[in-house]
Amino acid sequence: MTLAEAWEDIAPGVRPAQAVNTGAPLPIWADTVVMIEHTQKIGESAIEIRASLAPWTHVRPLGEDMVATELVLPANHKLRPVDLGALAGSGHAMVTVYTRPRVAIIPTGSELISVEVVSSEQFEGNSEELRGTQRNLGELAYSPTRPLAHSLPQHSALSTQYSPLSPGQIIEFNSLVLAAQVEQWGGLPTRWPIVPDELEQILAAVRNAATSHDLILVNAGSSAGSKDYTAYVVQELGQLLVHGVAVRPGHPVILGIIGERGEGGTRRHGEEVAHSPTRPLAPSLPIIGVPGYPVSAALTGEIFVEPLLARWQGQPAYEPPTLQATITRKVVSHTGDDDFVRVAVGKVGEKVLATPISRGAGVITSLVRADGIVRIPRFSEGAEAGAQVTVHLYRTLPEIERTILSIGSHDLTLDLMAQFLAERGRRLSSANVGSLGGLIALRRGEAHLAGSHLLDPATGEYNVSYIHRYLPGQKVMLITLVGREQGWIIPPGNPKGIKGWEDAARPDIRLVNRQRGAGTRVLLDYELGKRGIVPEQVVGYEREEYTHLAVAAAISSCTADMGLGVVAAARALQLDFVPLAQERYDLVIPAEYGEGALLRPLLDLLHDAAFQKAVAVMPGYDVSQMGVMRSA
Amino acid sequence: MTLAEAWEDIAPGVRPAQAVNTGAPLPIWADTVVMIEHTQKIGESAIEIRASLAPWTHVRPLGEDMVATELVLPANHKLRPVDLGALAGSGHAMVTVYTRPRVAIIPTGSELISVEVVSSEQFEGNSEELRGTQRNLGELAYSPTRPLAHSLPQHSALSTQYSPLSPGQIIEFNSLVLAAQVEQWGGLPTRWPIVPDELEQILAAVRNAATSHDLILVNAGSSAGSKDYTAYVVQELGQLLVHGVAVRPGHPVILGIIGERGEGGTRRHGEEVAHSPTRPLAPSLPIIGVPGYPVSAALTGEIFVEPLLARWQGQPAYEPPTLQATITRKVVSHTGDDDFVRVAVGKVGEKVLATPISRGAGVITSLVRADGIVRIPRFSEGAEAGAQVTVHLYRTLPEIERTILSIGSHDLTLDLMAQFLAERGRRLSSANVGSLGGLIALRRGEAHLAGSHLLDPATGEYNVSYIHRYLPGQKVMLITLVGREQGWIIPPGNPKGIKGWEDAARPDIRLVNRQRGAGTRVLLDYELGKRGIVPEQVVGYEREEYTHLAVAAAISSCTADMGLGVVAAARALQLDFVPLAQERYDLVIPAEYGEGALLRPLLDLLHDAAFQKAVAVMPGYDVSQMGVMRSA
Repeated sequence: MTLAEAWEDIAPGVRPAQAVNTGAPLPIWADTVVMIEHTQKIGESAIEIRASLAPWTHVRPLGEDMVATELVLPANHKLRPVDLGALAGSGHAMVTVYTRPRVAIIPTGSELISVEVVSSEQFEGNSEELRGTQRNLGELAYSPTRPLAHSLPQHSALSTQYSPLSPGQIIEFNSLVLAAQVEQWGGLPTRWPIVPDELEQILAAVRNAATSHDLILVNAGSSAGSKDYTAYVVQELGQLLVHGVAVRPGHPVILGIIGERGEGGTRRHGEEVAHSPTRPLAPSLPIIGVPGYPVSAALTGEIFVEPLLARWQGQPAYEPPTLQATITRKVVSHTGDDDFVRVAVGKVGEKVLATPISRGAGVITSLVRADGIVRIPRFSEGAEAGAQVTVHLYRTLPEIERTILSIGSHDLTLDLMAQFLAERGRRLSSANVGSLGGLIALRRGEAHLAGSHLLDPATGEYNVSYIHRYLPGQKVMLITLVGREQGWIIPPGNPKGIKGWEDAARPDIRLVNRQRGAGTRVLLDYELGKRGIVPEQVVGYEREEYTHLAVAAAISSCTADMGLGVVAAARALQLDFVPLAQERYDLVIPAEYGEGALLRPLLDLLHDAAFQKAVAVMPGYDVSQMGVMRSA
Repeated sequence: MTLAEAWEDIAPGVRPAQAVNTGAPLPIWADTVVMIEHTQKIGESAIEIRASLAPWTHVRPLGEDMVATELVLPANHKLRPVDLGALAGSGHAMVTVYTRPRVAIIPTGSELISVEVVSSEQFEGNSEELRGTQRNLGELAYSPTRPLAHSLPQHSALSTQYSPLSPGQIIEFNSLVLAAQVEQWGGLPTRWPIVPDELEQILAAVRNAATSHDLILVNAGSSAGSKDYTAYVVQELGQLLVHGVAVRPGHPVILGIIGERGEGGTRRHGEEVAHSPTRPLAPSLPIIGVPGYPVSAALTGEIFVEPLLARWQGQPAYEPPTLQATITRKVVSHTGDDDFVRVAVGKVGEKVLATPISRGAGVITSLVRADGIVRIPRFSEGAEAGAQVTVHLYRTLPEIERTILSIGSHDLTLDLMAQFLAERGRRLSSANVGSLGGLIALRRGEAHLAGSHLLDPATGEYNVSYIHRYLPGQKVMLITLVGREQGWIIPPGNPKGIKGWEDAARPDIRLVNRQRGAGTRVLLDYELGKRGIVPEQVVGYEREEYTHLAVAAAISSCTADMGLGVVAAARALQLDFVPLAQERYDLVIPAEYGEGALLRPLLDLLHDAAFQKAVAVMPGYDVSQMGVMRSA
């Protein structure tokens, strides 16, 4: 007799019922759930069901989600938050995961000084103005969160003075970058104290690190200079496999194996995981000599360290998202080497553009500014301007799409603007190529706007005649950003008694110049011409820098005696200033972008009181005409 | 007199020189670097320069990288490893970052039991077989690494038995998922102990959490059941802003504010950051009532918690990468609600396909299996099969591109295969729609392969006649995967004395059936038909499950007395088995995919000794014909 038949016997037409909450288990005798809105109370202890229901209606079977022995997650799966739910829901409170590889990072070099030492006295007095939490970079490199913490406005945004370094000292920061990379890739980094350029000391450090790590990175000393000991160290302790790779930047990479069987005290990576089919028993300990230039070091991390750590954790090497883009400048490649070119990426109209950034291996900011990287394969001869290239992206596509590309003359206001725009959902990517370069870039459709301060000697008017010449027939908006003061940037106290334009011709004064096409260069040439001074008379005329701050830095480091620039650049480096001229700095914006949504927050900013105030406090800046539209 | 002139006076035609290593600073009197290969020694203390060089050649100016006061990083920038280098290189050892928001997660429910308690006795005896590191899920939820650790093969991969739960107990794991989400989004989660369904206890827990957190999540109790207290709690302690949102799943979300001014002890989020322009002073503490169903809970995290945490850290809400895809099945939407449909995504030929996964809000595995989510906006009526939809991806594009889509009959061998393929760079995504459903999916071009075991009653041959009927003219490969035993899955000890096919007609036996189109259903109908048994005679014939394991689960939970399935499913749940028939289970693969690179590792696996062995140890499986090609 079935249960139903039994009930029919006891009370014809009647069934037992019990209230249950959503999600609760059913009584053992029940096989159907009726929604409360389909029932009606009849007396004290009975309900009438007002819907026709098949058995198992509104019942979720026990096996709906997961049944014992069913596959919950495959091998080598990277656990996400929801996976923890699936594991727990199927009764697993424990799970076996890969051991995190331990990576020792040993910075070597007698000239190095750690950033913690350099900057220890920097943070006095102004702590009340700070918001959020102060963290030292070492902490951030081992941040318990991924992504790393977000920096706050103002303090982190503008570089402060270097603390005094002794001549020849270099701030060590590659170990910070490598440690943060290792952490990001799932490893456990150990940042070693700086080891001087002494073979015995480096040997001792590597031996010591080998006892408790799975991978050793020795930073710098991988080249062939007189104090480059890494290759000796590897040969002494094991086997040098590779010295020099066909990759630029990053050429002098060393790959080796140390701690051969019998090498006392060396702990091998494979020991804990000897039975794993995906992580073969390592015969000994890998060691990588990482080149010293910051860009080379960071790229060596990406190219050689990441795939190794990924493999040890059962993962394929990281594949960044890619994008097809038009390269804006010709890239000459070293034949025989894979060339990694950092690029800024932006979308101008319908075109996605990749603009190569400074290729110096020492320029860590080129990696900070890079939106992606283009690999020019060996045996190719580079890429012509206008060629389609594949960009491996450092940023997401939405970030690229909210990027405003600014190109042209450099002004400190643009840095402030980047700051304010970041809080308004836009990223400002600036390239400093001078005013004329900016107009030419606009003509080629390579930017959304250009900063320009080109004086027309014939009319005394700024920018208009240049726009007519370089952007004929193109509809543009011309909007004033700031008025600013130009003059000689000079050493403190003006030791050479510099007074005016005429001092440029003095044989005892070394000029540092701006590059051709810069508005400041146009101004200098115009004023010198008026006074009959020819370039041949000017010592240092041929030495060119690309920004006001680079000019100021040349004065500050005593390699030049004066240079034309804005007063704010002089003040920034505690230099003196001889005012010479007042000029107008405008934004040139093709109408199609000026009317679009991307640039809206930027145009709004020109009428924003807080922004105007922030600009006005910089010495030599006049915001009275900010936002004024000019007819072009 | 310049330095050069002074030297010319002292020693005509001679200049001072000093050896420097690459990267080292220049002596104060030097302005040019000559590469060593362009020099030649002359006597003891002199060199000859064999190249013509302009001043400043091979000299990197001090300001090349970064000049004081120059913008290093804008506000609200997420620090990456290279950014630490740029900060340190510009003399910053400290940086101000956003404080991580502290989030309390309070699980409520008298029926809940924590996963740690349930599974504490599970890991005895077999620890020697384990590789890598055992971690409990709580640890992983607060993993110091992001991404979370990678799970290892075998142990984590297959669900083990549930430990005995008392009837009515439910394993609590939403707090694990929410904690891992909060951690991933930059917050600091606190998992509260489970609080029973008692208003006073929940009030106490929330008051307590409010003293030291920036956000409170109360899990479950947000609906309108008799024990749903969250709304009361919010009203008691502050203001109920929203009860119920137009989102499915996740409908009964509660949004509120507690700890109004004057509420003693409540610490406000804004206190530390009162001056920040990007983080306005919070008047009080936000509280979110998170629905209890696992999928609703996880989606509430994504939709409501993530944007809040992002905003508090100066970031825009996360925007997942998107992809256009063709939806393979009609999706009916609740008008008036935004409907979030989990989908499996794969690329078959040139077509990107999105296949909806089970929509039950209780099915956490639907989130685990989901490759992305499709939002059907409110006031639309859903999406027709074949419509183009935008998928918000949970996986990267490369992962999607190495995914093999398998659809059709379910077999445990496919789970093992997923395991082995994961180690070979492929992801196997299986949908269980029965053998016939698989062939139809192949005809529509919706999968790379189909598992099938369709018996032709007329010929006694498997699959061939069905392929001719359902895939006419299509060139396919037919390869045997396994031979397997079908029979009655029955309770342990066979209390009802079940012996053969005829028992299906017994009125005291409740069957659990497989869905129409399943090979197992075809077999049952064939055998019953041969014996003259009609469906109306079979109690439970209309109750359908989609997998062998779901059938076994129905027997295990005593809601049915027998069901047709494979012996491995019976063994998996410690059930008994009455063998009835031996059958062949084949893979049907369109030739174009069978010959492609994507499926290569899968086809190789059929001849892999380790894989064959792993299948052969499952009870009732015969691998003697694995990999045999059939003519179709």
